[in-house]
Amino acid sequence: MAITYREAGVDIDAGEELVRRIGPLARATRIPEVLADVGGFAGLCRLPGGMQEPVLVSGTDGVGTKLEVAFATGVHDTIGIDLVAMCVNDVVTTGARPLFFLDYFAAGRLEVDVAEAVIRGIARGCKDAGCALLGGETAELPGMYEPGKYDLAGFAVGVVERASILDGSRVREGDVLVGVASSGLHSNGYSLARRVLIDVMKLDYASHLAEFGCTLGEALLRPTRIYARAVEALSAKLGDRLHALAHITGGGLVDNVPRVVPSGLAPRLELASYERPRLFDLIASGGPVEEAELRRTFNLGVGLVVAVPREAAGEALDALAAAGESAWLLGDVVASTSGETLFT
Amino acid sequence: MAITYREAGVDIDAGEELVRRIGPLARATRIPEVLADVGGFAGLCRLPGGMQEPVLVSGTDGVGTKLEVAFATGVHDTIGIDLVAMCVNDVVTTGARPLFFLDYFAAGRLEVDVAEAVIRGIARGCKDAGCALLGGETAELPGMYEPGKYDLAGFAVGVVERASILDGSRVREGDVLVGVASSGLHSNGYSLARRVLIDVMKLDYASHLAEFGCTLGEALLRPTRIYARAVEALSAKLGDRLHALAHITGGGLVDNVPRVVPSGLAPRLELASYERPRLFDLIASGGPVEEAELRRTFNLGVGLVVAVPREAAGEALDALAAAGESAWLLGDVVASTSGETLFT
Repeated sequence: MAITYREAGVDIDAGEELVRRIGPLARATRIPEVLADVGGFAGLCRLPGGMQEPVLVSGTDGVGTKLEVAFATGVHDTIGIDLVAMCVNDVVTTGARPLFFLDYFAAGRLEVDVAEAVIRGIARGCKDAGCALLGGETAELPGMYEPGKYDLAGFAVGVVERASILDGSRVREGDVLVGVASSGLHSNGYSLARRVLIDVMKLDYASHLAEFGCTLGEALLRPTRIYARAVEALSAKLGDRLHALAHITGGGLVDNVPRVVPSGLAPRLELASYERPRLFDLIASGGPVEEAELRRTFNLGVGLVVAVPREAAGEALDALAAAGESAWLLGDVVASTSGETLFT
Repeated sequence: MAITYREAGVDIDAGEELVRRIGPLARATRIPEVLADVGGFAGLCRLPGGMQEPVLVSGTDGVGTKLEVAFATGVHDTIGIDLVAMCVNDVVTTGARPLFFLDYFAAGRLEVDVAEAVIRGIARGCKDAGCALLGGETAELPGMYEPGKYDLAGFAVGVVERASILDGSRVREGDVLVGVASSGLHSNGYSLARRVLIDVMKLDYASHLAEFGCTLGEALLRPTRIYARAVEALSAKLGDRLHALAHITGGGLVDNVPRVVPSGLAPRLELASYERPRLFDLIASGGPVEEAELRRTFNLGVGLVVAVPREAAGEALDALAAAGESAWLLGDVVASTSGETLFT
């Protein structure tokens, strides 16, 4: 009997059915700059009009083993928001406006309903970030992934005027550092979090945690906040008084804030300036996980750090509040030879 | 005893060691438009100077289960060329010049030597395509991948003048279709190829195949050709007489050529115009795999199809030969109501 591609594990019809379902989701994210439909060899997007010296800004990321929480709970329609957030939040730290996004979805066997739910989340994230879902690749790789598992990668492109690029060079001694609240773990540290909460503490994703008012699965799956609109608001209000933005991902406040502070200076953060979300305390005590390891692995409740001159702090807080963010004075920029984040 | 991120399966030091090794590889791909080093929150790239109405063109892809051949043979330094090729060849079909590339590499445990070899291949592909390796993500996802396995996704961005976009609308009845040779299977159909060659025919990757002058593993791993330089040469020589380009990937000549032919017309291909590489015959007879399935799954020796007016065919062949490609008259464009590829 003849052998077919389907028999070898690749279902072209399922792939085509998924493409049909994705079409309307992607079209709903269209921005005026988009030229072509999803489905050609490549996606096309104009630049916004009236730019003097446009610079493209691009970032790629995945969502790490937060995926395992989606697999275990069967909730697949928000992990795509995380994927967009992880990429777009990196892009906007340069001051860029996100333009478009592409996704890569890979599974051993293509389950159309699951893939559609994932991409629905991606489309929702794109709308939230104001960027178009311009294309994507769905790969069916028999034998590469366990049944029910998949991996995701995302790519975002934005654009910024060259003169407006934020690279930390505007940061001065005495600048204040505004913390913007994260929504939870975002998409970092899940291997450690699951090791503690599931393996060591023997908690269950379905178990209701009174202190969180939801199940553990819900707390862990909460989508990463997308800061694109907040950054747009900050930029509109502060202009060049917006000195720097740091997206707090793997490496935490320890590694990410110094990336936007010039040499000779360092970020000084007052951890008592806010109430650390209890999920991090639960992980710390449940492991136990030492404080230094915790700070290097998790965002500890801070998703974005904003550097502004002290006299602009009030305006920054106002702009963030108006954009729906919780923000507070987290610290300041001080002279330092090591450049390492100081915690007080 | 306290639990650490490393103990939970994520080795930050290995990740940092990899970043150190990747740095010089990425820097070697720099083009003048690149503004920042790999390692910031995002990669920055200017547009080429002097463009009137630049349009960004973007594509994403993986390399499918060609990865399994890399795993089985332990050869990891060319699969990255495939990754770049799959993305960049899509981008250049629009007439765009590739600008930059980003990669996503995910494994259960980060093996620095393997990851470095993969990324060395990616950097080589980027140099061949004339684009910069602008960034990437290396994800260590404990439990997601079997030991020794990894997945790859790539993302390419190019730029084209709006007036020069190739979308098939220039294609006319009577245009000739020039075939450009592939280097082998490129990166499509490996699940079917491995099913036939390994599972059914019981061949071994290490077995020397006299008719190929190499091992089966070498024949299957041969990197996908990157057509960026060839398309640049065609474009320079033909100008707007370059009517369309089709990258032959999954779906083969059956699905991909009609994508650039306007309605009312169809591609007519003469399969006797070239000698089909014997690897495809081996798969066809070894399965057996029916001819229709073969045509829908593999490139059958044709990696790119170029549509030009008949009087420009000689110039197109000359330009391709000068760019180092093997090319020939594969067919033409005829009136058709169905639009489906006709094989003669």
